[in-house]
Amino acid sequence: MAKQYAVIGMGRFGTSVASELYEMGYEVLGIDTNEDKIQDAVDFVTHAVTADSTDDNALKALGIRNFDVVVVAIGADIQASILTTLILKELGVKKIVVKAQNELHGKVLTKIGADKVVYPERDMGIRVAHNLISPNILDYIELSPEYSMIEIVANHKMVGKTLQETDIRKKYGCTVMAIKRGEDINISPLANDRIDQGDILVVIGKNDDLQTLEEEA
Amino acid sequence: MAKQYAVIGMGRFGTSVASELYEMGYEVLGIDTNEDKIQDAVDFVTHAVTADSTDDNALKALGIRNFDVVVVAIGADIQASILTTLILKELGVKKIVVKAQNELHGKVLTKIGADKVVYPERDMGIRVAHNLISPNILDYIELSPEYSMIEIVANHKMVGKTLQETDIRKKYGCTVMAIKRGEDINISPLANDRIDQGDILVVIGKNDDLQTLEEEA
Ligand SMILES: Nc1ncnc2c1ncn2[C@@H]1O[C@H](COP(=O)(O)OP(=O)(O)OP(=O)(O)O)[C@@H](O)[C@H]1O
Ligand SMILES: Nc1ncnc2c1ncn2[C@@H]1O[C@H](COP(=O)(O)OP(=O)(O)OP(=O)(O)O)[C@@H](O)[C@H]1O
Ligand SMILES: [Ca+2]
Ligand SMILES: [Ca+2]
Ligand SMILES: [Ca+2]
Ligand SMILES: [Ca+2]
Repeated sequence: MAKQYAVIGMGRFGTSVASELYEMGYEVLGIDTNEDKIQDAVDFVTHAVTADSTDDNALKALGIRNFDVVVVAIGADIQASILTTLILKELGVKKIVVKAQNELHGKVLTKIGADKVVYPERDMGIRVAHNLISPNILDYIELSPEYSMIEIVANHKMVGKTLQETDIRKKYGCTVMAIKRGEDINISPLANDRIDQGDILVVIGKNDDLQTLEEEA
Repeated sequence: MAKQYAVIGMGRFGTSVASELYEMGYEVLGIDTNEDKIQDAVDFVTHAVTADSTDDNALKALGIRNFDVVVVAIGADIQASILTTLILKELGVKKIVVKAQNELHGKVLTKIGADKVVYPERDMGIRVAHNLISPNILDYIELSPEYSMIEIVANHKMVGKTLQETDIRKKYGCTVMAIKRGEDINISPLANDRIDQGDILVVIGKNDDLQTLEEEA
């Protein structure tokens, strides 16, 4: 049987998780205390229910423990987020994913049994900050504490050269993983592939090395 | 001179953008109507000021047009976000980046001159949804409307085989760009590199092809 998901809290983040899962063909139950949010949610989840997740009987009545994954996307009300996580754990939910407001909130959630804690605003803030340091940096994604990936528009020093001639690997110790050209993406670029005006390079490297590349880009 | 940034709205997203820029060594001005937020911000921005960005005189007095990039990270108050963007545009700010609540808000922002519109909760929601469809999918990032990148834990069918033997390219049309092993990351994996238990593969491919790989992972 296909996996079943429940999402508690139909804010912007919860809505996005729920609708993406639903679009991929999964069964999704959406829960919110706010009736308006539930009214809106009807279009992009399988079932939408008005309920308060800090009420354990309400969650029991919804058969919450039969869901494969429950996502807690409650925002401002940290107390409700923690209490909900505790209840889900007690009811025996197999996988609980919770959105945290800050590190301290996240630590508490992990301690009481959240299987995964996510920080949407923090993570996207880091990503956007890197996009801003040069108009040529289109994207920045942390792969690990040490390594990241950036997307960078080919500058005048790169255009017309082959990948090898750009010296990106030699000079910065970074690797060009892919080259985007309009709608196309070349995911196995060769040393002698030539870079065109407007090409976007997808580059992986150590954070320090990438920052040097970003600043000179 | 190093670039100067201003961030209006010290919510979770604004705070993250500001502190990451500050950490990278840039000058950052933080602005919020809420004095408590400004008190907290003092530690991770160059200057923190209590002001209402819908007041054009307040922004003028701060010399806002001398900043290279202004980030509008106001959340719930869509009207304030739009009005602020209009004022920044009129004052001649060169680059305005605005956080939007939804598509409609985003369209309005673009029309009135925002240079970049970001949707932190929506984008992270999509990312997290893909992370949830298999415990082996650790990350999912859209590279373009057609192509994405996933991080996937090597399954029992892959462990012990060489990259070539896994048939990921032949069977799914996807490319393994990197292999993470503990703290290390191999960013130029070869066809005959062998996959170990616990290895994480960074794979790029078309969305449809990746979804097939994700579901079988
Ligand atoms: N106890 C609860 N049970 C069910 N839903 C709840 C509960 N408490 C809050 N919610 C709902 O969670 C949703 C998200 O909360 P809120 O808007 O505070 O978070 P947020 O972090 O600002 O959201 P986002 O940034 O994702 O838009 C709201 O729609 C709210 O009604
Ligand atoms: N006119 C304004 N001038 C300056 N700051 C403002 C103005 N209006 C709102 N803010 C500030 O913007 C910040 C973000 O607003 P809010 O918390 O509604 O957004 P949010 O989208 O829920 O934030 P996040 O998800 O990033 O935490 C708040 O600290 C608020 O005080
Ligand atoms: Ca989609
Ligand atoms: Ca938010
Ligand atoms: Ca950092
Ligand atoms: Ca909010």
